[in-house]
Amino acid sequence: MPTSIDSVMQSGISRRGFFRFAAGASALATMPIFTEPQMALAQRVKLGDPNKGIHIDANENPLGPSEAARKAVADIIPRGGRYLLNMQEELVAAFAEQEGLKPEQVMVFPGSSEPLQYTVLAFSDASHPVVVADPGYEAPIWAAETSKASVIKVPLADPRGAAAHDIKAMLAAATSPGVIYICNPNNPTGTVTSRSDIEYAVANAPKGTILLIDEAYIHLAGIPSAIDFVKEGKDVIVLRTFSKLYGMAGLRLGLVIARPDLLSKIGALGGFVALPITAVAAGQVSLADADLVPARRRIIGDIRNETFDWLKANGYSFTPAQSNCFMLETNRPGKHVIAAMAAKEIYIGRIWPAWPTHVRITVGTHEEMLAFRSAFKEVMAQPATAWSSEPVLPNPRRGYRTLG
Amino acid sequence: MPTSIDSVMQSGISRRGFFRFAAGASALATMPIFTEPQMALAQRVKLGDPNKGIHIDANENPLGPSEAARKAVADIIPRGGRYLLNMQEELVAAFAEQEGLKPEQVMVFPGSSEPLQYTVLAFSDASHPVVVADPGYEAPIWAAETSKASVIKVPLADPRGAAAHDIKAMLAAATSPGVIYICNPNNPTGTVTSRSDIEYAVANAPKGTILLIDEAYIHLAGIPSAIDFVKEGKDVIVLRTFSKLYGMAGLRLGLVIARPDLLSKIGALGGFVALPITAVAAGQVSLADADLVPARRRIIGDIRNETFDWLKANGYSFTPAQSNCFMLETNRPGKHVIAAMAAKEIYIGRIWPAWPTHVRITVGTHEEMLAFRSAFKEVMAQPATAWSSEPVLPNPRRGYRTLG
Repeated sequence: MPTSIDSVMQSGISRRGFFRFAAGASALATMPIFTEPQMALAQRVKLGDPNKGIHIDANENPLGPSEAARKAVADIIPRGGRYLLNMQEELVAAFAEQEGLKPEQVMVFPGSSEPLQYTVLAFSDASHPVVVADPGYEAPIWAAETSKASVIKVPLADPRGAAAHDIKAMLAAATSPGVIYICNPNNPTGTVTSRSDIEYAVANAPKGTILLIDEAYIHLAGIPSAIDFVKEGKDVIVLRTFSKLYGMAGLRLGLVIARPDLLSKIGALGGFVALPITAVAAGQVSLADADLVPARRRIIGDIRNETFDWLKANGYSFTPAQSNCFMLETNRPGKHVIAAMAAKEIYIGRIWPAWPTHVRITVGTHEEMLAFRSAFKEVMAQPATAWSSEPVLPNPRRGYRTLG
Repeated sequence: MPTSIDSVMQSGISRRGFFRFAAGASALATMPIFTEPQMALAQRVKLGDPNKGIHIDANENPLGPSEAARKAVADIIPRGGRYLLNMQEELVAAFAEQEGLKPEQVMVFPGSSEPLQYTVLAFSDASHPVVVADPGYEAPIWAAETSKASVIKVPLADPRGAAAHDIKAMLAAATSPGVIYICNPNNPTGTVTSRSDIEYAVANAPKGTILLIDEAYIHLAGIPSAIDFVKEGKDVIVLRTFSKLYGMAGLRLGLVIARPDLLSKIGALGGFVALPITAVAAGQVSLADADLVPARRRIIGDIRNETFDWLKANGYSFTPAQSNCFMLETNRPGKHVIAAMAAKEIYIGRIWPAWPTHVRITVGTHEEMLAFRSAFKEVMAQPATAWSSEPVLPNPRRGYRTLG
């Protein structure tokens, strides 16, 4: 018999709710959640075979690694028994040269989750809170649980319009914040915080406050980076990842860019570790391919804009994303829509407590988005009575008992 | 003109010395050092092409990933854009089943460096020191720098004989240690701490003290694991890695085994992160291959024992290792021997301050060890006058200025 979704869990990222959900489940579920894929997983109503169905729920890039990157991974396999730290240094040097940085302003990690976590641990505490946008990426919130910092959630400005970070409100939210986290473009809305707002933040943040600018999605928007503030010696830490545009989420490679004195505090918590040479090899050739960023930005942007055209034509509203994800208004509890879509084996992204009737959609391939459209239209056409009870799980995964 | 090795650096793991060495160098060098490959790199006198020469300096496994593991990596490449967390859970479940553990007693990381680091951060502080063996693996010492714990180094018992951990002295070293670190077999000596000594430690460690038992090399020795103490609910944390016997140092996969309440403290610092799917795929098939551990233990053990026979026959002394590394007595400053071997493009492992006339040797392939033997014999035959000045670097690497 199908069982109902745990309503606390489905209400969004409630920490207490999650830990209740997790009790007694596997090690994955008993651990704190820090990262995009885990949050996607935690709210996924059917955790079945990732080879089946359409997965537009974790801001993955369906294109995967570039052809050259795939070849680089294959070529490095025989050396898998070696640490090859020199390759990591070459990658840092190549990135630094491209960005006009010094190598000592760059550190590499197996993804950007670690430096995000360590930044919050290093620079926030019980008297230096973490300021985040809402809805925004939740990882800093979970990290603040460990640093014992309070978290101040500042609603996005103009939520039915630009839905960008309310930078002035974020700066006014605390007298001595440890970290102000700005994801640009924002996850989950895909919306951009303007250059002038970032400049304002840098100019007006309290002395000693870290502006943590997460540029995981920046390649998809083609907007100016905040890296120049690092060059100017500001209290700015920039995160980059190869998980999004470069299609390397499963390979694990990320960068953090900051003044060396800030990097040493980040590194003291968990760097400098040996990286997967598979990821480093793929990252090196991806950086060297000057066409990759503009070509993929165009591909993903075109699919996003086609999807937007269709949504508009059908009367749906959504955030004006410039990234590979956006928030879609369902005008009903988003968890119902997630479950109904999952029943059609189309797995869409989670909801945020602040916006309970929105669901996050990742931009998949053209074909995937056509399938999404038709399924979404069918789901939204269901009569109101269809939404009256808790959503039903098609095939709860063993081990996630309270999801089942 | 060749320049001399920085004498502070070459004196061993002096933290102050390292940071002086690091000043002005690349990001790698400016970061704290936590891991085996970094320590190997920091003392490597020639940081040239890792494809050239013989590298028996970082306890890598020259066999690399198994054939099945290589195929698994190749097969997963097209999915490199996906997080595939479900595979991580399958790996945890498979390992737990093999070891008779519950999945919630196991966490996976991209290597065992992270859980080692987090364990020291979570369970040591200014009033709860870290107790280590000397010579022993240095990573806990660097981690204690971040946790502000003092470090108590306890000499190995019977250094010219068994050279095992002096467990009673380690237990007596502090009244309320946070972490007692036992690497079994030990790095760098390759020597084994007996089951009865481990039992004694578990029975007699102060309440609340964590016994951190690093079993990175255990597959190579075939000795009993301390995992059963985790099953009994003790304050024991066991580390495992796929970097050594499994030949996956460059792929990055490690496990930590402990009570869930201890794991949650480890995880709060930097887990649960998405892992490289390349490593997870390779790890899955490696675990599934029942012949891999005994077959490789035999191969590497045979080469080690052949090397030992030759060393004995030539009058050299060394630690009675049961692992893929051992300490070799040179009866002169080890740094000179390292430099002289490097001049022959044979890169051997570092020295430890407590044993300045020993060098660590990793067991390479049969052919590599034959080359090692003849080079070592030549180097040791050099007249005393050859050792009178600081060693000369054959080809210092750009960026590591104070190494050059």
